[in-house]
Amino acid sequence: MTSQITTMDSVNIQPHIHSSEFDLDEAVQAVEQTMLNVINSDIDVLRDASRHIIGSGGKRIRPKMVLYSYIATGGKNIEYALPPAAAIELVHTASVVHDDINDHGVVRRGRPSVNAIWGRTFALLTGDFLFTKVYELMAPYGDLNIIFANAATALVEGETLQAVAVKNNNLSSEVYYKIIALKTAELFRAGAMLGAKLSDAPEEYVEALAQYGYNIGMAFQIVDDILDVIGDEAQLGKTAKLDKEQGKGFTSIQDNDVMDNVKRKLMEGDRLAQARFQAEQFVEWGISAISILPDSFAKNALISLAKLVVERQF
Amino acid sequence: MTSQITTMDSVNIQPHIHSSEFDLDEAVQAVEQTMLNVINSDIDVLRDASRHIIGSGGKRIRPKMVLYSYIATGGKNIEYALPPAAAIELVHTASVVHDDINDHGVVRRGRPSVNAIWGRTFALLTGDFLFTKVYELMAPYGDLNIIFANAATALVEGETLQAVAVKNNNLSSEVYYKIIALKTAELFRAGAMLGAKLSDAPEEYVEALAQYGYNIGMAFQIVDDILDVIGDEAQLGKTAKLDKEQGKGFTSIQDNDVMDNVKRKLMEGDRLAQARFQAEQFVEWGISAISILPDSFAKNALISLAKLVVERQF
Repeated sequence: MTSQITTMDSVNIQPHIHSSEFDLDEAVQAVEQTMLNVINSDIDVLRDASRHIIGSGGKRIRPKMVLYSYIATGGKNIEYALPPAAAIELVHTASVVHDDINDHGVVRRGRPSVNAIWGRTFALLTGDFLFTKVYELMAPYGDLNIIFANAATALVEGETLQAVAVKNNNLSSEVYYKIIALKTAELFRAGAMLGAKLSDAPEEYVEALAQYGYNIGMAFQIVDDILDVIGDEAQLGKTAKLDKEQGKGFTSIQDNDVMDNVKRKLMEGDRLAQARFQAEQFVEWGISAISILPDSFAKNALISLAKLVVERQF
Repeated sequence: MTSQITTMDSVNIQPHIHSSEFDLDEAVQAVEQTMLNVINSDIDVLRDASRHIIGSGGKRIRPKMVLYSYIATGGKNIEYALPPAAAIELVHTASVVHDDINDHGVVRRGRPSVNAIWGRTFALLTGDFLFTKVYELMAPYGDLNIIFANAATALVEGETLQAVAVKNNNLSSEVYYKIIALKTAELFRAGAMLGAKLSDAPEEYVEALAQYGYNIGMAFQIVDDILDVIGDEAQLGKTAKLDKEQGKGFTSIQDNDVMDNVKRKLMEGDRLAQARFQAEQFVEWGISAISILPDSFAKNALISLAKLVVERQF
């Protein structure tokens, strides 16, 4: 943890890392530091709660998508890609903090949720704080803010559509796919696109990576929902049971089945296998979309990331 | 209400209004339309709840500050100032929606609050949605996003500091002034600065308007807190009693007095008069800061706006 005061310069004080001497893990570590720098605040609870949720980890798949796409399309100055990579993770983190308020989630990533420790009022404000820090990080990036803003709006719209469906206890397959497209795939799409835009890649590469991001996002959310249903709480590190009880996630593919029967039905039938097949299909489409990119270790990293999405057990 | 689908173009389809043929009310009306256009969504609850809170009015003092400052420093193309003017009101509106969740406020601007009608989950998401729409509106404005981001962060920090003080039942005058500076004056400052920046005003005008905005913001919040304490619920159009019971706002000036006694003590003593004097002082400083601006009807409008802040009864 840094104790340094955050200034607008904080986004520019990262160590110089050039992709010629490039280490993927090092770049992802630099994203962590960028996040920690920007969320510094002299309001203790905002700083502490932000550090808590950021420090509890997460897969960092969204910033990886920005960084790998940037390098795979010829980006040379990792430093330039760090603030957008950090910003996209902060959008996700803010939504996670607010989601745990709405779902009464008490465990997140194997730790108590922000609302479990600091209460709902401060959790709400911490989420808002993280959203404002996204603005700060993205302020120097001009038109890329439009891509970012649209993805952030889609995220909130997807969460809202999900809450409506849960409230009405009516979640068709069609609505399920709309929800996961909005709440997850659009942000993945934005991340992969941003990487390409940051390297001034030709339009066909930008479009290829947008397709890649969208499809991997769809796959990611389907797998997440499968794991929510079959996983036990310890393995998932979050309150899977609550998600299920509230009829969220994978229940979609069950259409209007009674929520309590979801898990049993899934394990009995072949719906689980169908959902996994669907996720694998999305991954295949995603990987196929970037076949036009020149071969590179970063392109390989994008392919590995895509495969990891369907192979992961947590 | 428009039923038109929101696109990124929506910010650019305002009618042309030039300050040569300029009408202040017309400009403020155009801000309303800019807000309504941008919050259109095909997710019903987000659109309806946003329309509800925007349609319930408000004094629009923040967008007025942007517009009047823009014109007073030579800005000619009102259309260009509309999205930032709308964005600053949406930041405020988002914070109001979230504030009502945390305070269990059920009345806002004489209407039921968003959480009272749609519940806390959708109110939280509506606030988030409005925040993302701020990004969208501001995306084309480059470096001005830094001013905006810092003011939005200050707002959340101020709200948080207030919640901490309320929780600890310990609100010194010093902390009170820090809270109102962060949660109110910084956004007013940003609004007045933005107007000058948008017109490419010389640095001394930018700084003068920043001072103006800050001081008027301080005055505004002090008067708001006075009215919260002395006003009845109907007149204020919001849940004044709740604010008082939770020890917010004007209680600051009471230091650690027991909350239940605030109103009585205020009406007995001369503290109310002291607070009003303080607010008038801030207004005087604010008006004095813009004395260097050339005379114009827009400068007069800024002065009138400042005076209205201390004269208002609601």
